[in-house]
Amino acid sequence: MRLEIYSRAGMALTRRRLPSELVRTLMRFLGGLEAIRALRRSGFQPKNSIELLVFATEEPTRFGIGCLGSRLLSGTLSAEAAAKLKDRDGQTVEEVRRKAGFSGNLQEVKLPKGNYKAFVELHIEQGPLLERAKISLGIVKSIAAPASLRISIEGAGGHAGGVLMPDRKDALCAAAELILAIENAARTSGAVDTVSTVGVCDVFPGAVNSIPSRVRITLDVRDTDLARRDGVMKTIERASQNISTKRQVSIQFELLNADAPADCAPEVRKAISESCREHGFPFLEMVSRAYHDSLFISRIAPTGMLFIPCRNGYSHRPDEYASPEDIARGTLMLAVALAKLCGGSQ
Amino acid sequence: MRLEIYSRAGMALTRRRLPSELVRTLMRFLGGLEAIRALRRSGFQPKNSIELLVFATEEPTRFGIGCLGSRLLSGTLSAEAAAKLKDRDGQTVEEVRRKAGFSGNLQEVKLPKGNYKAFVELHIEQGPLLERAKISLGIVKSIAAPASLRISIEGAGGHAGGVLMPDRKDALCAAAELILAIENAARTSGAVDTVSTVGVCDVFPGAVNSIPSRVRITLDVRDTDLARRDGVMKTIERASQNISTKRQVSIQFELLNADAPADCAPEVRKAISESCREHGFPFLEMVSRAYHDSLFISRIAPTGMLFIPCRNGYSHRPDEYASPEDIARGTLMLAVALAKLCGGSQ
Repeated sequence: MRLEIYSRAGMALTRRRLPSELVRTLMRFLGGLEAIRALRRSGFQPKNSIELLVFATEEPTRFGIGCLGSRLLSGTLSAEAAAKLKDRDGQTVEEVRRKAGFSGNLQEVKLPKGNYKAFVELHIEQGPLLERAKISLGIVKSIAAPASLRISIEGAGGHAGGVLMPDRKDALCAAAELILAIENAARTSGAVDTVSTVGVCDVFPGAVNSIPSRVRITLDVRDTDLARRDGVMKTIERASQNISTKRQVSIQFELLNADAPADCAPEVRKAISESCREHGFPFLEMVSRAYHDSLFISRIAPTGMLFIPCRNGYSHRPDEYASPEDIARGTLMLAVALAKLCGGSQ
Repeated sequence: MRLEIYSRAGMALTRRRLPSELVRTLMRFLGGLEAIRALRRSGFQPKNSIELLVFATEEPTRFGIGCLGSRLLSGTLSAEAAAKLKDRDGQTVEEVRRKAGFSGNLQEVKLPKGNYKAFVELHIEQGPLLERAKISLGIVKSIAAPASLRISIEGAGGHAGGVLMPDRKDALCAAAELILAIENAARTSGAVDTVSTVGVCDVFPGAVNSIPSRVRITLDVRDTDLARRDGVMKTIERASQNISTKRQVSIQFELLNADAPADCAPEVRKAISESCREHGFPFLEMVSRAYHDSLFISRIAPTGMLFIPCRNGYSHRPDEYASPEDIARGTLMLAVALAKLCGGSQ
């Protein structure tokens, strides 16, 4: 089978100054579309039909969580729970989708297990490993998943001059200790796959001459292994109890979500790796550090992911970039793997 | 000499729900006025005249620094430098005061050294020590003064899943280490008079799934001893260099102001302590942890401060409170001390 990939669409994307989130979405959509078209152009006759899935709200977290579409399709999120989710203005998913003209029943969105024989997602790596190794293709072994939490620390405020050091219950000093304990818990988990991040730190009252009375931080812990991630969470909670006792501050954890990680299906990984070998493209077997719609679709279908490099590993930044050559090569491997997975002949 | 203090003004202040800053200002003004009036009512004839000073903008930092009036009066701030200070909207002191109808020349504000034989300021403690000791009067030995700085920490951002722990240059983790080093430098200075505070911590980009690339914190270090405060600053700078090297982040310090602390004048302290002893009022000799117009007036005149308790040591909060009895007692001691300092007879 000889497939020709038209990379004009991808090149146009990379040359126009579109928001990186939109480029990522279009690349996945257009990559899938071009893979299917290339198969048709080649005269390939599939045994099982090939579908292009476009998911709603993978990334925007208007309703507090991402991947709403794939969560609903896979039944990870129930229709009842989804309908009640609210945005900042208090509007529910149900209200917003009605206003946007969607009248269908959310109950009917869920797919039965076995509906798909296989599912493949093409994505940029969102990390620097492929670029560093000078290898153009990555095959995902497992998808790490985050536990996200909000942590509130309540101490006691006061005048920066008036309250002596031994009398302080400085919420920011307590937060600083917790931030370092969070970093250390990930660093000492025993696996490089554990990462933890505090991305938000809001301080009240937030004045140069006021001792912080209240601090809110967020916590994002990811791992490819659920038990290890839970172990890291326990280490962090123990550290927070020690800090709370030592500094006489109160520390509250609020769980936002805790999705389980997923392993990619051996048969899908094999289809992709065989495609690469046949074309003489070296590849790297790797972990997806970010999570994707694949994480949820993996609950109902054998799932695999194909990565291409992105410059400097940058993602979720305006300077995110993937080259047209890498996009075309990834799309070609997607097409070949799809042909293998659906069976059929030219 | 028998003085009668009318405490109605003070009582009215504490009963009305005025902003605490306004109550503090009015207490100082009305306390001084009532002390002078009480001396007049008693028939006292001063040898040196008594002046009531009302300072402009002690507390509001519209132009970046407080105590504009006393800084100018004492020559701590030059007329040229003051005229150029700008507020958030880019308006200069000169423009604002012209618009408000003040046409005088700032050059003429500065007072010559020796203009005043003595200066006394009545204030709430803004700390909990008098209340804890159940003593109603404090005589200030020295006034601590702050060095204020802005500190910028630049690391490298990235996706909270995509960048592994060994590859990170997390600006918030670096800031957390620095915040603890700042706390420790004050705690281990060898004197309880050293305090340090990080009151502001701004994180960029500030999202749950983004590694912080940039953090801005403020630093406020106070001490009654200038050499010790400078020593603490040096310790903090050394710690920041170590953190910068270890974590490969850049850390920049920007000095906002660094006023020197001041000792109160022995003759003024003596006049106040004798007044208290004569009336049988116990007093505590103490440090002013906050700074005041007295800090700057002490550069040109022998200066003393008289403290009264405030509930729970609270200040710069809506629930700041001093009792009418304590205000009246403080005003009485102010009057007696003024009589001693200016000489004269009944």
